[in-house]
Amino acid sequence: MQHKRRVKELHGLIEKKGFDGILVVNPENIYYLTGAPFVIGGVGKLLYLGKGGSASLIVTDLDYEEARRRAVGVDLVRTKFGERPLERLKKIAGKKLGVEETFLSQKFYEGLKKGFIPMPLGGAIEKMREVKDEEEVASIVKAQRATERALTKAYRNFKEGMTEQEIVSEIEYHMRREGAEAYAFENLVASGPRAIYPHGMPTAKKVGGGEGVVLDLGVKMSGYCSDMTRTVFFGRPKREMVRIYEAVLEAQKAALRAARPGMTGKELDGVAREILEEKGYGKYFGHGLGHGVGIAIHEGPSVSVRGEEKLVSGNVITVEPGVYIPKLGGVRIEDMIVMTEKGSRNLTRFRKDLLVF
Amino acid sequence: MQHKRRVKELHGLIEKKGFDGILVVNPENIYYLTGAPFVIGGVGKLLYLGKGGSASLIVTDLDYEEARRRAVGVDLVRTKFGERPLERLKKIAGKKLGVEETFLSQKFYEGLKKGFIPMPLGGAIEKMREVKDEEEVASIVKAQRATERALTKAYRNFKEGMTEQEIVSEIEYHMRREGAEAYAFENLVASGPRAIYPHGMPTAKKVGGGEGVVLDLGVKMSGYCSDMTRTVFFGRPKREMVRIYEAVLEAQKAALRAARPGMTGKELDGVAREILEEKGYGKYFGHGLGHGVGIAIHEGPSVSVRGEEKLVSGNVITVEPGVYIPKLGGVRIEDMIVMTEKGSRNLTRFRKDLLVF
Repeated sequence: MQHKRRVKELHGLIEKKGFDGILVVNPENIYYLTGAPFVIGGVGKLLYLGKGGSASLIVTDLDYEEARRRAVGVDLVRTKFGERPLERLKKIAGKKLGVEETFLSQKFYEGLKKGFIPMPLGGAIEKMREVKDEEEVASIVKAQRATERALTKAYRNFKEGMTEQEIVSEIEYHMRREGAEAYAFENLVASGPRAIYPHGMPTAKKVGGGEGVVLDLGVKMSGYCSDMTRTVFFGRPKREMVRIYEAVLEAQKAALRAARPGMTGKELDGVAREILEEKGYGKYFGHGLGHGVGIAIHEGPSVSVRGEEKLVSGNVITVEPGVYIPKLGGVRIEDMIVMTEKGSRNLTRFRKDLLVF
Repeated sequence: MQHKRRVKELHGLIEKKGFDGILVVNPENIYYLTGAPFVIGGVGKLLYLGKGGSASLIVTDLDYEEARRRAVGVDLVRTKFGERPLERLKKIAGKKLGVEETFLSQKFYEGLKKGFIPMPLGGAIEKMREVKDEEEVASIVKAQRATERALTKAYRNFKEGMTEQEIVSEIEYHMRREGAEAYAFENLVASGPRAIYPHGMPTAKKVGGGEGVVLDLGVKMSGYCSDMTRTVFFGRPKREMVRIYEAVLEAQKAALRAARPGMTGKELDGVAREILEEKGYGKYFGHGLGHGVGIAIHEGPSVSVRGEEKLVSGNVITVEPGVYIPKLGGVRIEDMIVMTEKGSRNLTRFRKDLLVF
């Protein structure tokens, strides 16, 4: 368990920055630092790291038993029923608090000023999270393998005339039975002309006649996300869709080959973008090539035209070029890779030849 | 469609508060005001409401087609690839901007100060969202009925020895086939001693020997959430668990009978809490009685010891008392109600007698 090492690094930051302590509110960051579980959108726990190495997790009665079983390296502080965690914090914390300025709402931040002097952490915890250790990579791979086994089984039941919702029902059924504790995001099944919609939640639309279907899928295991996209066809695709598929696959493979530490996210994005531009599809690739994956489905580093930071060993990122043409359809192919000392390793082991059901 | 009425109300607020305009960033609020779709955690769209009744939705290339098809009553402003929406905003917006201070991060808010004078909206949009119109209630009911049909079908396959993940796989399979476009939250299946964990994601644990299983379930349809909890038993329950079940059900029914506009959320919480206290379970009811449900799974009004505001006609809230005893297990029973002029109407139509599989 790396939790204590991570907390220690933040205690170093307290000294360096002259804080009295650090307040952690983002449940993902609390999980990263202590192992105390969370649900998306869940709130209520506060982690306080003080000078001299103290670490206190303030939890409600309701959270206490679960936190006691799972949190590592922290003192549990149990609030009384109805007591606000911030009131308890005032009793144990110093004044000058490093806080998560990209997570806390402006209103919460203003409220903190009544008892504390909040100071931006500058994304320090999120930056630590960008570099995964072996245990984290193993969790991501475990989640990815479960998704792969589930999709393999679901493929057996795919046939023309199914609805998008029937397709996703088959996939998620097997995801759960392969061990998904949750989904990494809202699984996306978008077919035919709908495949160009970034928010194309599965509908009762039937799929067939050669339509492409974008399947963007991920689960969570041990608190870590996986992320994979495949585009498959229900019925024989049009020649133009085959051309697009081949172009996207070529762009993706080129980016996978090129990925190495020291290049920026923007440079890696450019490798795929250049190929799609050469083939005349550049203007239809309207998003970045990828993003970091970890406890959150979208985290650093950015792999897009805005990705100015250099990729480093331990980053886990997606490589997912896509082409979306109004009225015609869309194709996206996505693998996850981990950056290594000399290059990268593909964490995805799933066929990506053009499949027709 | 009520979108234009809602936007008009905010244009009134611009005049009243002396803003130059209102900037809306929260995707749920943008959906509420325009119908433009979103995914949880999705960002990138900006809605600007200006003096004199203007309404502009700034979208990326990627979002354009979907927004064009679905957004109501707004001018679409399409950014160039790589252009930041905030840069475009500067070209069309006035200086004094009403903003969502409970949604925007402190860092984003600080950044806004470089081009604007941000001023807190005071939760105005969230407050509007607390009172549902008929169309919104119909969407919530549609989502709830789909959940009910799914659980009815899943019950047919429940048997001792199943794992929590197998149980949730059956439920979600049918949820999708009944029309779920997404889940309202991470569906929870927590059995036996695990049922006391508020973040008890489904595991590979087998269920049986009279264990109680808390099923907290919801889907999204037309962008609106449903929320229902049932506790069922796998094998014949212990006498103490039956007593707890009966106490929780009695507390829930009393609260359902008592709910009427004019009482505060705290008062309604007190109705259930008093009954559980009388029966000696008060200290094991460690959360609020309920919360508002709508586009978000948790929204106003609060129905807890902190719920000081009065319930009004059109509020949709949950009524979900629970008792959780370490090592023994937990019971929670949850319906959704809509507040009416004189009382309330239960939106849930699903059996809640003690069920043994």
